[in-house]
Parts: sequence; structure tokens; C-alpha cells
Amino acid sequence: MRENMSDQSSQKPHDRLAAVLKDDLDAVSIMISERMASEHAPRIPQVTAHLVEAGGKRLRPMLTLAAAKLCGYTGPYHIHLATTVEFIHTATLLHDDVVDESAQRRGRPTANLLWDNQSSVLVGDYLFARSFQLMTEPGSMRVMKILSNAAATIAEGEVLQLTAAQNLATTEAVYFQVVRGKTAALFSAATEVGGVISDAPEDHVKALFDYGDALGIAFQIVDDLLDYQGSDATGKNIGDDFRERKLTLPVIKAVALADAEEHAFWVRTIEKGKQVDGDLEHALALLNKHGTLDTTKADALMWADTAKAALAILPDHEIKGLLVDLADYVVARIS
Amino acid sequence: MRENMSDQSSQKPHDRLAAVLKDDLDAVSIMISERMASEHAPRIPQVTAHLVEAGGKRLRPMLTLAAAKLCGYTGPYHIHLATTVEFIHTATLLHDDVVDESAQRRGRPTANLLWDNQSSVLVGDYLFARSFQLMTEPGSMRVMKILSNAAATIAEGEVLQLTAAQNLATTEAVYFQVVRGKTAALFSAATEVGGVISDAPEDHVKALFDYGDALGIAFQIVDDLLDYQGSDATGKNIGDDFRERKLTLPVIKAVALADAEEHAFWVRTIEKGKQVDGDLEHALALLNKHGTLDTTKADALMWADTAKAALAILPDHEIKGLLVDLADYVVARIS
Repeated sequence: MRENMSDQSSQKPHDRLAAVLKDDLDAVSIMISERMASEHAPRIPQVTAHLVEAGGKRLRPMLTLAAAKLCGYTGPYHIHLATTVEFIHTATLLHDDVVDESAQRRGRPTANLLWDNQSSVLVGDYLFARSFQLMTEPGSMRVMKILSNAAATIAEGEVLQLTAAQNLATTEAVYFQVVRGKTAALFSAATEVGGVISDAPEDHVKALFDYGDALGIAFQIVDDLLDYQGSDATGKNIGDDFRERKLTLPVIKAVALADAEEHAFWVRTIEKGKQVDGDLEHALALLNKHGTLDTTKADALMWADTAKAALAILPDHEIKGLLVDLADYVVARIS
Repeated sequence: MRENMSDQSSQKPHDRLAAVLKDDLDAVSIMISERMASEHAPRIPQVTAHLVEAGGKRLRPMLTLAAAKLCGYTGPYHIHLATTVEFIHTATLLHDDVVDESAQRRGRPTANLLWDNQSSVLVGDYLFARSFQLMTEPGSMRVMKILSNAAATIAEGEVLQLTAAQNLATTEAVYFQVVRGKTAALFSAATEVGGVISDAPEDHVKALFDYGDALGIAFQIVDDLLDYQGSDATGKNIGDDFRERKLTLPVIKAVALADAEEHAFWVRTIEKGKQVDGDLEHALALLNKHGTLDTTKADALMWADTAKAALAILPDHEIKGLLVDLADYVVARIS
């Protein structure tokens, strides 16, 4: 942890970053409200507001604002790009909840439950389109390529996740492909465009991309690990991924080390979905037997270190310290 | 009809346009195949190919190619933009079939039936993202704004249709708003970007926009009319929209002219959806009583005339004649 935190030391790095970026985050909130409006279809801001006002940590737009500030950007367009990133994220959440048939998100009923799947699909499309309108406004071709590539990688990762689900042959390589799509692609695009819009030197832009990519991967691994470890902070039930037959890193590692009997257990519970009482406990015992919760944790810590190392070449700056702390904080939940 | 059609006179204008644009259309087909590929998720090209290979008339990309050729464009990027337009269209079809819970499209089972809703939602997202990648390639900010605005208008129109459905208070103004979104926005963007990419004079660009807008509106009105009139060519069942309780122009006009008893009939069948045998026949009798099939037809013909009139300022060109014929052909199905 950093030394110059003084009276802020009790706050989470995420909150300290939000404090430093407060004016910019307020501007993003205003732009979100403006741009989610629809002249003709009031259903659109209703659905969007339900999700946006539920809070969420605004982590992704904050990454864009932080990268721009770190690179000395003084123009107005980091607000547009942070809003773009949040709209892409919100659109994918709306569509994810339809795909997963989710009933809860951020502690509230999902939009597909409150309204219907149709509204979630179409309002998601609207937010995608709005995000593309927004990303044209800074007039940077490179920014548009980065963000449209990220959107394609996200969708590709989601489809890959769908087809890899419940397939015990899923390798760690496929898992990382999915994670890059569903999480890291938007993190890395968020930080990269902050550097690009600032006309930062190429090695700084690459450092920002690498930081976002590694932070996103660490973030998702932690999320998948907490699903088996539990955490007071998340309110997630232990074993949701197991019950939903999602192949995440701890299980992929355990399947790779399974003997014949264990393999049959995973085939029955994950591939065939025939789960009975006591299966979750047995699954946890297998993860512990093969130490895959520990090796998964080691992977997460390694990616957090990768994220921090990427920042090394960037100039000293208050924001840089906060981004280092943020990487530590992401994995602190499992430490 | 034009005079210089010679031996082609027996062909439909759509087919003659396709013949004139053959090389460009072939290039679009190749680009569609290339760009719908996915390195990691084979489900994506499977779903897309199912829809793309089912044919469809490629009307929208043809409008972009025609506009560019009419304006003397000699560069390569009309192919990218025509492919963009087809991807946006295909993505909206995938999402529409989820929203409408459709089982058939272009005479084949829909993707949501063959695979699942999840695949349709996510592959649609992938094609949207691909279309945004494609539209950046010509490097024209104006083109990107036109196409991203069209995507937002489409989604907004779909949401508006969803919320206006089964609401007898829906006015003709709301109907046209929906039609602009679901159909005309992509037609007009398709023709407009063909002019913009060619650096055509502003009044020519505007003429192309106006043509696409009016053609799209005529096209949708005809579609809605045929649902009550029937047509050998479409294979559509008479009364699908009535059974699905969709408020289209012939019914909106009849509701506006209804007496109390007729109003009660529309409330029961459309708003409440309590339909019994003989209701479709009674609905048709009411449309005939108030002449709304005729007034709807007159509207369609007026929009086709508007489309043709918009072309007047453009220079004489083989393509211009074909676009005039195309406008006649769109409404010929109801003449």
C-alpha cells in the first residue's frame, strides 16, 4: 500500500479515486442522463435509469477519466468517452440478464423481470447505438476503432461463453478468451482511450492498455473465486456458478486434475446438470483437494502484479498511486 | 415506367438493379462472409449464415451501392458501407425475432428457434459491433454520424412500437415515428451515405436521403396493407398483424372513424386480445366500411411519388431510372 495516504487511508482506493475525479464523474452523470433520454420512447430512460441509478461502481468510466487525467488531458472529450464506456457496459448488462434469465442485479429486480425481455433487448440496442454516437464526437478515428473493436470482442466473448458453457473440455485458454471478452476488453479500452485522447506517447498508451487488460482479468478471476469462497461484501451466494453449471477457473483446474471418479462427478453435475443435495459440498472438497482455490488465487494476484507493473513507465502522479492501490484492492477481497 | 428497358422489360426493377450492380454485390457478399467470421466463436458465423444465406433481397445494401454509382463514386468504400448496412439490418432481424418470439423468417425457422434466444441476442450484438468497426474504415466522420444516428433511431422506433402496441390511442403520427425507426431510417441512411462517400453536392445528398426515407415509408405501409389484403408473392397469411394485435395504419385509421360499438370491438380484439372465430372477418368488414384499405393505399402511393420526385434534381443516369422504377415496384404489389 502507498504511504502518503494520510487521513484518507481508511477509504477504499475506489472511493479515493472517485473523490479525486469528482467533478468529472458528476459531468459523466449529467451526460448519462442527457444521452439516455429519448424524445419518443419514454420506456428507454425508465429502463436505463433503473439500472444506472442502482449505482454500480462506475469503475469503467472512472478508468477512462483517471487515464486522461494521468496523461494531462485538458479537453472536454474524456467525459464523452467515459459515458460511452458506461453505456456499452450497461447495454451488455441488460442483454446478459436476458441471456442468463437473471432475476436480480445490484440487489434489485432486473429490467427483464420488471418490464420484459423485449425491453431489455431493445433498450440495450439503443444504448449501444447511443454509445456509438457518443464515441464519434471527439472526432478521433483511433478512439472509434478501439471502442468498436472492444464491443466486438465483448460480444464474441459472450457467444464463446455460451457455447463453452457446460463443456468439460473447456481449457484455461478458452476461459481467458472469455474473460478478455466479457470483462478485460472494456477495461483495457477504457484506459487506452484515456491515453489516446490525451495524445500520450505510444508507450504510455500501451501501458494504460496493459493495466486495464490485467486489471480486468484479475477482477474477473476474483469474481469467479468468490463464488466458491464467499465474501461478506458481495452478498453473492456461494455456489451460484456451480448451480448454473458455469465452468470457471477453479473448476477448470480441478477437472484437469480429476481422476476417473471425480471426472464422472463433474460430468454429472456440470455437463448433465443432475445435481443433488451435497454436490456443492463435494465440489468444494474437490477444489480443496487439488488446491485449485489457492492456484486460482495465485493467478489473480499475478494479474494484479502485472497491472501494477504496467504502470511503472508512467510519470509519478497522484492518480498513478491510486491505480496501483486499485489493483491491490481488487485482489484484497480474496487475500 | 421507363422506355429504354428493351429486353429487360420483363424483369423486376429490383433484379435489373441487381444486374447493373452485380460486381459490387458480389464484393459485398465476400465482405459479409469475411466479416461475420469469428476466430473464437464458431456459433457466430453459423447463426449469421443461416440468416444471410436464406437470401433476403439485399435491398438496403443495394441502395448504398446504387447511390454511390449514381454519384460517380470510384473508390472502394461503398462496399464497406453496404456491408455495414446489411449487418445492421441482420442484427435487427435477429433481435426482432427474439422480441416477437417469431418461429419463421424468410421461409425458414428463425435462429432463436434453431439455436436459442441467447445466441440471437449475442450474435446480433456481435453484428452491431462489426457494423461499427466497418463504418470506421472509410474514415468519414459524417458517414459514422449518419449510420450511428440511424442505429439509434431504429432501436428507438422498436421500443416505441413495443410500448405503442395494443394501445388504441396510437395516432398516425406515432405510427410514422415507428415506421421511420423500424424501416425508413436504414433506407435513408443507406442512400445518404452513398452520396456522402462520393462527395456529391449537398442537394444531391439530400435528394438521396429523401428518396430513401420516402421509399422506406412506402415499403412499410405496403407491408402493413398486404397483411390485410394478402398477396400471392409474399406468402404471408392474411391477418397475422391482427392476431398479433399490432396497430398498423389500416386499423389506426378505422379506430379513428369507429362508432361506439366498433370501438368496443377494437378494444376487445386488439387491446384486450380476446379474439374469437369470425373476428378477423369482422375487422376486415370494418376496414372496408371506412375505406381504410383504400386510404392506406393512397398514402403508400403518395410516398412512392415523394420518393420519385426527390430524385428529380439528380443527373440523368441508368441507375436513376432504375430507382424510379423501384419506387413504382414497391407499391405495384398493392396496385
